[in-house]
Amino acid sequence: MRIGTDRAAEILNSRDNILILMHASPDGDTVGSAHALYYALLSLDKSCAVLCADEIDKKYGYITENARKISDAPFEAEYIVSADVADEKLLGGALEEYKGRIGLAIDHHKSNKSFADNLCLDENASSTCEVMCEIIEKLGAEITPLIADCLYTGIITDTGCFKYPSAGAKTHICASRLINAGADYAKINRVMFDVKSKARIMVEQAVLNDMRFFFGGAAAAITLDRETIERAGASEGDLDGISAIPRTVEGVEVGVMFREKSDGVYKVSVRTTEYVDASKLCAKFGGGGHARAAGCVISGGKQEVINRFMEKVEGLL
Amino acid sequence: MRIGTDRAAEILNSRDNILILMHASPDGDTVGSAHALYYALLSLDKSCAVLCADEIDKKYGYITENARKISDAPFEAEYIVSADVADEKLLGGALEEYKGRIGLAIDHHKSNKSFADNLCLDENASSTCEVMCEIIEKLGAEITPLIADCLYTGIITDTGCFKYPSAGAKTHICASRLINAGADYAKINRVMFDVKSKARIMVEQAVLNDMRFFFGGAAAAITLDRETIERAGASEGDLDGISAIPRTVEGVEVGVMFREKSDGVYKVSVRTTEYVDASKLCAKFGGGGHARAAGCVISGGKQEVINRFMEKVEGLL
Repeated sequence: MRIGTDRAAEILNSRDNILILMHASPDGDTVGSAHALYYALLSLDKSCAVLCADEIDKKYGYITENARKISDAPFEAEYIVSADVADEKLLGGALEEYKGRIGLAIDHHKSNKSFADNLCLDENASSTCEVMCEIIEKLGAEITPLIADCLYTGIITDTGCFKYPSAGAKTHICASRLINAGADYAKINRVMFDVKSKARIMVEQAVLNDMRFFFGGAAAAITLDRETIERAGASEGDLDGISAIPRTVEGVEVGVMFREKSDGVYKVSVRTTEYVDASKLCAKFGGGGHARAAGCVISGGKQEVINRFMEKVEGLL
Repeated sequence: MRIGTDRAAEILNSRDNILILMHASPDGDTVGSAHALYYALLSLDKSCAVLCADEIDKKYGYITENARKISDAPFEAEYIVSADVADEKLLGGALEEYKGRIGLAIDHHKSNKSFADNLCLDENASSTCEVMCEIIEKLGAEITPLIADCLYTGIITDTGCFKYPSAGAKTHICASRLINAGADYAKINRVMFDVKSKARIMVEQAVLNDMRFFFGGAAAAITLDRETIERAGASEGDLDGISAIPRTVEGVEVGVMFREKSDGVYKVSVRTTEYVDASKLCAKFGGGGHARAAGCVISGGKQEVINRFMEKVEGLL
C-alpha cells in the first residue's frame, strides 16, 4: 500500500525492535538514509539495528562508526524497514531471508517494485534521504548534527552535489535545513567529491594522454591497460567514473573506454550524450545497459578490438 | 562607506544611466551578477549597460546575448557600479578611466579594497550573485527566469556547484528561490561542470603530467605556461578551475598553480584544505583573497618563483 510520510512516521512510532535494511553495493543514499533513521529511532528510545549484505566503504565511516550492526548484540527484529531499496533482489544474496518480510519500504525510485506491506515513495525526491528527512521530522525526533550528516550525504551522492536535474527547489530547502542542523557539509562534500588518491590522479593522467578522437570529434576513446592500473596501484574505487571521461569532451556524442581485463579480453564501457543508444550499440557485441550508459566484452588484440567497436559506432553517428 | 542591501537598492532606485563594470578575466560570478543587475534595472525602465575589459567566454552566451554593451549605442554613464570587483586594479587596463569614479561596489570578497563611494559587501555570502539577489528583490524588480539564470550561474561557479564551505544554508535558500523563479539549473549545471572543451582536456593533460608534490605530499603544485595555453588554443573559460586540481589529491593541504602571465611574471593561485590560511599566505607576496582560495603575483624565473613561494608554504605546514 502506498503511504505518505505522515503515516510512515506513525507506523514507526508504534513499533519497536526495528531492523533497517540497505541495498547491496551500498551507496551514500542507502547508507545515509538507513543510518539517519537508525539514529532517530535510537533517540526515541527504540531498539534498532542496520544491515547491509555488502561491506560499507570506509569513506562513510563518519556515518557508520556509531551504529549497531545486527551482529553486535542479540537483536530480535520485530519490524523490518528498507531504505532506498527499489527491488528485493537488490538486498543481495546474504539478506535473502528478509524477502517477503519487509513492513515498510522508504524510497525515491520510480521503478520500486512495491514488495513491502507499506511503500513510502516520493519519485520526485532527489534521494531517499530527502524523503527520510521528512519522516524523521514527523517522527518528532531531533535532527542532530549526526543525523544531518547522514541525510546530507545521501542527497549529495545521489545528485552529484546538486548537479543533476533531480536537485530541485525542495532539495535545496532540505539541504539548507540540514546545514542549519549542523551537517558538516564542507567536509562531506570534500570527502565525496574533491579528494582523489594519487593512484587516481596517475590513472587520469594516463588515460588523458591516451585519449583519441574519431569521426571529427563525435566520438572519443581511452584505453585502460592492466599495466597502468598496476603501476598506479589503483583499486577498483580509484577507477570509479574513469569511463565517463571521454564523453565530457565538448562535441563528443559517444565516449568509450576499453579496459583490458585479461590477455586479449577488453571490457568496453560506453557513455553517450543525446542521440546514440548505448544499450543498442553494446547489444551488437552481446552486452547491454541503459540508453546513456552501457557495456560489453570483446576479445581480440587491442587495436583490432578498438577498430571493430568504433566501426559500429560510426554506423550510428 | 559600508552600506547594506537596503541602502544599495535605494541608491540604485534613485539613479539612472547606470554603467555596471565587471572584473577582467571574467568568471561566472562577475558576469552573472553584473547582468542580473542590468536586466533588473532595465525592467525598472532605467537606462544601463555592462562593461568588461576582457571578452566574456561564449559558454555564458545565455546570460550575455541580450545585454547592451556600452559600445552598442550612445550611452553617457551617470553612475558607475562594480559587481564582484575586489580591487580597482582588477577592472583591467582597458577600464582604467573608471578608476576613482565608482559610486557603488557590490561584492563578497573580504579583501575588498573599499575603493568605491559605497560598498555593499557581504563577506559571508557564497558569491556576489547571492548579494545581488537580495538587492534585486529590494529594488522591487521581478526575478525573471533570465535573471534567475544569471544569479544561479554565479552561485554555482563560485561554489563549485555548492561544494565549497561558502555554500551555506543561506546559499541553498537562495538557490531554491532562483529555481522556483525559473532558473534552467539542470542545463546550466551541465554546461558549467559536465562539458569540457578539447582545449581544456589538453590543458588538464599538461598540468597532470607536470604536477609535483612537496613536503611529503602535504603540498602539490602545477605550472601553466603560456605555451601550453597557446598550443591547446585554450580560452580563459577553458582554464576555470584548473587551479583547483592540485588540492584535489588526497593528503594535500596546499594546492598551488603557477601561471605564466608574461615573461618572468607568474600569477600564483592557492587552494587550501583545512589549516593553512591561503589569504595570509598570499599576503606575504602582496596578494589576497579568501581563507581557502587566494592569489598573488610574483616576478622572477619560473623555478625561482616556485622556490620562493613553496618556502613560505613550508613555513605554514
